[in-house]
Amino acid sequence: MAAELASLGVRARAAVKTISTSSSAARDQALVLAAELLVARSEKLLEANRADQAAARAAGLAPSALDRLALDAARVEQMAAGLRQVAALADPVGEVVDGWVRPNGLRVQRVRVPLGVVGVIYENRPNVTSDAAGLCLKAGNVAFLRGSSSALASNRAIVAVLREALDKAGLPPDAVLLVEDTSHDTALQFMRLRGVIDCLIPRGGRQLIELMLEHATVPYVLDGDGNCHVYVDAAADLEMALDIVLNAKTQRPGVCNAAESLLVHRAVAAELLPRLARALEGVELRGDAAAVALVPSATSATEADFATEFLGPCLSVAVVEDLGAAIAHIDRFSSGHSEAIVTEDLAAATRFVREVDAAAVLVNASTRFVDGGELGLGAEVGISTQKLHARGPMGLRELTCAKWVVWGEGQTRT
Amino acid sequence: MAAELASLGVRARAAVKTISTSSSAARDQALVLAAELLVARSEKLLEANRADQAAARAAGLAPSALDRLALDAARVEQMAAGLRQVAALADPVGEVVDGWVRPNGLRVQRVRVPLGVVGVIYENRPNVTSDAAGLCLKAGNVAFLRGSSSALASNRAIVAVLREALDKAGLPPDAVLLVEDTSHDTALQFMRLRGVIDCLIPRGGRQLIELMLEHATVPYVLDGDGNCHVYVDAAADLEMALDIVLNAKTQRPGVCNAAESLLVHRAVAAELLPRLARALEGVELRGDAAAVALVPSATSATEADFATEFLGPCLSVAVVEDLGAAIAHIDRFSSGHSEAIVTEDLAAATRFVREVDAAAVLVNASTRFVDGGELGLGAEVGISTQKLHARGPMGLRELTCAKWVVWGEGQTRT
Repeated sequence: MAAELASLGVRARAAVKTISTSSSAARDQALVLAAELLVARSEKLLEANRADQAAARAAGLAPSALDRLALDAARVEQMAAGLRQVAALADPVGEVVDGWVRPNGLRVQRVRVPLGVVGVIYENRPNVTSDAAGLCLKAGNVAFLRGSSSALASNRAIVAVLREALDKAGLPPDAVLLVEDTSHDTALQFMRLRGVIDCLIPRGGRQLIELMLEHATVPYVLDGDGNCHVYVDAAADLEMALDIVLNAKTQRPGVCNAAESLLVHRAVAAELLPRLARALEGVELRGDAAAVALVPSATSATEADFATEFLGPCLSVAVVEDLGAAIAHIDRFSSGHSEAIVTEDLAAATRFVREVDAAAVLVNASTRFVDGGELGLGAEVGISTQKLHARGPMGLRELTCAKWVVWGEGQTRT
Repeated sequence: MAAELASLGVRARAAVKTISTSSSAARDQALVLAAELLVARSEKLLEANRADQAAARAAGLAPSALDRLALDAARVEQMAAGLRQVAALADPVGEVVDGWVRPNGLRVQRVRVPLGVVGVIYENRPNVTSDAAGLCLKAGNVAFLRGSSSALASNRAIVAVLREALDKAGLPPDAVLLVEDTSHDTALQFMRLRGVIDCLIPRGGRQLIELMLEHATVPYVLDGDGNCHVYVDAAADLEMALDIVLNAKTQRPGVCNAAESLLVHRAVAAELLPRLARALEGVELRGDAAAVALVPSATSATEADFATEFLGPCLSVAVVEDLGAAIAHIDRFSSGHSEAIVTEDLAAATRFVREVDAAAVLVNASTRFVDGGELGLGAEVGISTQKLHARGPMGLRELTCAKWVVWGEGQTRT
């Protein structure tokens, strides 16, 4: 194994006990100090980031990637604001999740405790460094970060600030650690640090997830695709349906909770689809035969289109026979992220909620709400499309686990 | 992929919607019917089991494995009783885990729903077939079972009973499926059924777990080793300490929550250890130098002994300087299962509970209580030594996940 990684692993484990049993006051102080320092060190950060940008431009990084890499004063201020906001959230650690007394007098509790070392492997957004580390620290974890090579100078500068803040708050600086060796081999080794990493959170595309599935041996939570549907029922308020589809598709098309596919009950398709096509100006519609018949400007959708997360101005459209057909279509193509129905019919809403298997099911609301901030978690470290540990937006609570604590008075088992 | 596995996978997914949205009354009825049928078909079951036993004996299976494989009328009755007991538990499905209203009026809930298809891969205990399937069904899941070749005839007979009961209760028989191809290759393919298996639970030894870590791509919960410690503090009630150590070590030495290692504060070692050695007659003690000095019959422990889950009449013993040294020893050697302290000192108990990182931490109670039944879960499908999703005994709740349900009135995101 890379010597750097082995040594960082030892340091991460050494910091766990102190940070996981520290007071929330100390951790909050570290976060607030880090926010102050990020702004105070802003010029140094931006200088490091300019170096990253220059190297990335020279290496021919795509414009969208360059945009994600770029920091400016406003983005630094956002990072600082994020840390302050996380500091202000309630501490999840120490919560007694539940508890009871057994017939033999044993007092049983499940108590929320930090996970330990949380690994985060991510691509070229430097703000993830501060956002993810902030959430990990708040929940009493060591943040073990592995960003991309393109953002290395920026990440180094941000991590230096976080470590300085920890030190000033009397906490171990090693509660935030950055892997500086950004080779592919090191990424693979990082995913296999059993006994070091308690939970690994990947923040990246399909390729990273495939790599994790094949190679990771540490426990992980996957932040998967969002092939999200909006189903407009026969009993929908069509004005509401227009608003919701427009919002879900266009408010921010590049994110995982944006709608990628529209299903319309045949009873309202003729009225809705032409209006929708006008409202969705600039969005390419790829429809099935019935949809194309109603919207001549639409192109014909292939099977693959219905399975695609476009992440851009494109929407697949199908006209369905009924609610059952809509659910069957979603069963087939959904990635299990967020699925919405628009209907005024209680029975239809209830059935959709019960039968659709996704992290989030929405009735008469835009899929764009499926986000830690919007749903009230305060912040999020990602959105899980798996079912174990975390499903949907992952907030502070998902960065903890429950430990059983049993208080007895000498009980033995018979 | 093996044709059988592919076809079973399709059948499992086809059964998910019906079983996951079925009434708990129907599922309970199926469980009670299955219990009746197990007893009614007892002779057929035992006949199948005798065939398995004969083949296993001919193949030279070890006596302990043969014992695990063997069924008799009493064990069949136990299986039936287990199903009745699970039927009587509260249904975890549908529980509103939490919920709130957002400032924009969105009503947000997290609702407990079945996982979907739960895969169970296990070794040669046929009772696991009925126990695991019963828990999966109770929580609204499809049980997709892959047992060992040595128990195939027994497993077939048990699964036939479960499927008959499902059918009689008006539920899809395919909610219980058995993989009959028990080749190693099929086991590997089973671990990689992404999109089919929502959660895989291995019940087996080290080798199976290593196989999972290397090859599984489906989400899984590991049921790991139990290198459990009892620490007897300076402030312990020594009579209580004797009782607890004796119970934790000898009440059932072959299970994961039995104690494997004893740590004794040096202030009470001279008084406790000789008495303990007498009480633990028949148990081999492997001690550090200080322990051997007090118990001449003890052998010298190696480093490896302190890391070993003996699962038998052997106990490693170390004399420690103080509570901090005990915790440091546990940090180093614990497998994160169950760790106990015996003390009358509140500060010591509190520190031990806070600092020891294990699925369960016990004060003045035997480690043997760390079990789903003993802690009040009604039943368990295993004991997780990982931190994600389930930590410690896994009951019905751990066979479910939470789905976000958002009720709106046309809200869109701005």
